Amino acid sequence: MLPPIHLSTRSHQTADQPISYFMQQAVENPRLISLAAGLVDAESLPAADVQAALADILSSPAHARAALQYGTTHGLAPLREQLLLRTVGLDGLTPAALSLSADDVVITTGSQQLLYLMGELLLDPGDIGIAEAPSYFVYQGTLTSLGARVLSVPMDEEGMDIDALASLLARLERTGEVKRLRMLYICDYFQNPTGRTLSVRRRRQLLDLVKNYSRTQRILILEDAAYRELRYDGPDLPSLKSLDADNSTVILGMTFSKPLAPGLKTGYAILPRDLMTPLLRLKGCHDFGSNNLTQHLIQRLLADGSYDRHVAELCQVYRAKRDAMLEALSEEFDASEVKWTHPDGGMYVWLAFAGGVNTGPDSTLMRAALHEGVLYVPGQFCHVNGANGPVPTHEARLCFGVASVPEIREAIQRLGRAYRSSQAGSRKLPVLTS
Amino acid sequence: MLPPIHLSTRSHQTADQPISYFMQQAVENPRLISLAAGLVDAESLPAADVQAALADILSSPAHARAALQYGTTHGLAPLREQLLLRTVGLDGLTPAALSLSADDVVITTGSQQLLYLMGELLLDPGDIGIAEAPSYFVYQGTLTSLGARVLSVPMDEEGMDIDALASLLARLERTGEVKRLRMLYICDYFQNPTGRTLSVRRRRQLLDLVKNYSRTQRILILEDAAYRELRYDGPDLPSLKSLDADNSTVILGMTFSKPLAPGLKTGYAILPRDLMTPLLRLKGCHDFGSNNLTQHLIQRLLADGSYDRHVAELCQVYRAKRDAMLEALSEEFDASEVKWTHPDGGMYVWLAFAGGVNTGPDSTLMRAALHEGVLYVPGQFCHVNGANGPVPTHEARLCFGVASVPEIREAIQRLGRAYRSSQAGSRKLPVLTS
Repeated sequence: MLPPIHLSTRSHQTADQPISYFMQQAVENPRLISLAAGLVDAESLPAADVQAALADILSSPAHARAALQYGTTHGLAPLREQLLLRTVGLDGLTPAALSLSADDVVITTGSQQLLYLMGELLLDPGDIGIAEAPSYFVYQGTLTSLGARVLSVPMDEEGMDIDALASLLARLERTGEVKRLRMLYICDYFQNPTGRTLSVRRRRQLLDLVKNYSRTQRILILEDAAYRELRYDGPDLPSLKSLDADNSTVILGMTFSKPLAPGLKTGYAILPRDLMTPLLRLKGCHDFGSNNLTQHLIQRLLADGSYDRHVAELCQVYRAKRDAMLEALSEEFDASEVKWTHPDGGMYVWLAFAGGVNTGPDSTLMRAALHEGVLYVPGQFCHVNGANGPVPTHEARLCFGVASVPEIREAIQRLGRAYRSSQAGSRKLPVLTS
Repeated sequence: MLPPIHLSTRSHQTADQPISYFMQQAVENPRLISLAAGLVDAESLPAADVQAALADILSSPAHARAALQYGTTHGLAPLREQLLLRTVGLDGLTPAALSLSADDVVITTGSQQLLYLMGELLLDPGDIGIAEAPSYFVYQGTLTSLGARVLSVPMDEEGMDIDALASLLARLERTGEVKRLRMLYICDYFQNPTGRTLSVRRRRQLLDLVKNYSRTQRILILEDAAYRELRYDGPDLPSLKSLDADNSTVILGMTFSKPLAPGLKTGYAILPRDLMTPLLRLKGCHDFGSNNLTQHLIQRLLADGSYDRHVAELCQVYRAKRDAMLEALSEEFDASEVKWTHPDGGMYVWLAFAGGVNTGPDSTLMRAALHEGVLYVPGQFCHVNGANGPVPTHEARLCFGVASVPEIREAIQRLGRAYRSSQAGSRKLPVLTS
């Protein structure tokens, strides 16, 4: 018998991601149509563009050497310069108008690394982070692994409810806990999991409110804009970052995983200047710089216009998928049974079933759905346990990113059958305690 | 005036890497020949191999889609399988002989990510890690940032002094601190910074000693074998992992940065089975999987033999560079003035100057070296401050990886001139207090 390994407190606080179970289901049952996994459309992955750009880079001896050698912890300077111009350009602004230079941009190993580094940089055990309810479950797990307390604020069609946030902040001030509040995590474009977008009015209110509570120490906003460029309807909205003219409060996180290719595992962030040195020190310990070849590749795709072309094509592909899902939902379900969001972009639709329907992993509905061959993410995984009252158990996240249009239609029909059979069954069964 | 940002304890414990200063020097002074930076030979970077392999992958639609989509946190399964066979093959063994399967292999974002994750997984603040003296300074900084205590054990030509380790362990047992000892970090092939290799005899002694102290809880050995495949003389030695037949004690860390290309930022590890689940949970929070395209690339380079061919060529290149450095040192310096190591592989030669010569960043020698146009890493950066007595200040690390053979000769001549001028100067100056 081997003596046990003593693991750190951090390790004990780090739980399995609930999504692992669903990934496994999809692998084990090839007949299953998964609307659970947040992967991207496979057909549109930019193989030809990537191949051409890499051939260009690798056939130039000097460029090849630069791309295959170590880069810097901060990231490739010309790429950071391009990303800054492009990103502030989305808001119709210049770097100077936002007190920004390329030094305020860092390249990360996907946006997940940014989220992790920010948690590590800002939160000691017992410190407080605020998230939307529901929110991105992977990051909730990350914050919990750091020993942080995650408080949440409800959402409606306009995104986070700012009045509810104001009440929460007032309460934290009364109890003195506001001094432990370090950051708010906001996914403000076509949010994961709801597909909702924070309205312009609320963006301004949010920033004003947070700056107002930053009198003795700064409370930061981590703006996860991963889905921003995947907009299928309506005009773009200003980023929170674009409203932060003195670059004091907003950390903007972006990724190439959704608009380009997840296999490149590359993201970037724009952040307050006094956070950059601590961030680079910590990233130096993690990896002293992300994959350098991929940075050169992305720089090339941005410079030659392939990236913009690709995003435009991708929006066509996902628009059709979203439309197929919304149409199938309205054919399959009655508005009295279930309500769903109508996202202008991104990859997610959020379902809320009417009273008493449970969507949990052991629910009648989930068993029926697996029997029919369709998988969703139970909404309860997207809510934080504990400090925020009971977790709703009647919701579900559907992703229209991976499945084809015919598969989406078929999957929603299967979900409809599963729902009806579970309702028929539940009338015969005693009410579940969960 | 902006209110300050409150940073975490971890952030405050994370210092700038001392190497940053030297990287900056090299950037600012193009005339300088840097023997400081641990980059790799630029001419031999495998641009053509990488281009061909990527073209193969990206021109097959199914393969391209797999490589550009999300991978798994664990890493590409066929790659893990290949790496396991190859790595145990270096020791003339089979996976079964070492109780290993591909599930015991994980792909990491360079080996630095493995080192970080292991620190995070095993060490709470105040826990103890043991390293060689001198050791890899980046990892010392990482362990310090985790709040760990780093104790060190002196080395000689055979690597870590096992008698000194035995004394240290006995002392930790007497004081009761042995229960806080979590791991030993050992770079056992052509060590960074000394170029020394742990002898076979000592490998066995080390493992026996550590297993002997693992009675109530397991003490782990993190074997950093980054340089193993870069051997220019003599027979290969068995890895510590190959002596750990029950896969209980040794975490073997390997990287493609040195034998292939640092720009790919990909490494891998083989580790005890009961560490894998906690490791994957934590890596899930960091990035839920390393760059997937690069994993497919490396899999292809291994499968088609390009990797083996490349390593063989690289050994020729580095052998010539090492020989040039050793020859230039013996032409330029007298054995009474300075002693240096004669590495059988890797990228580093370690210098120890005779009594009274200070190599530190503000020393007369460093100023003279910068004036002559050559840069080295002061040895003091490779020693842990504090618990291990005064830090030696008369040593230097030289890297023969980056500079060409003529540059290496020129750099050593410059170092010789710097040494002689600093000695002449120091006879005129009062003795430095450092």
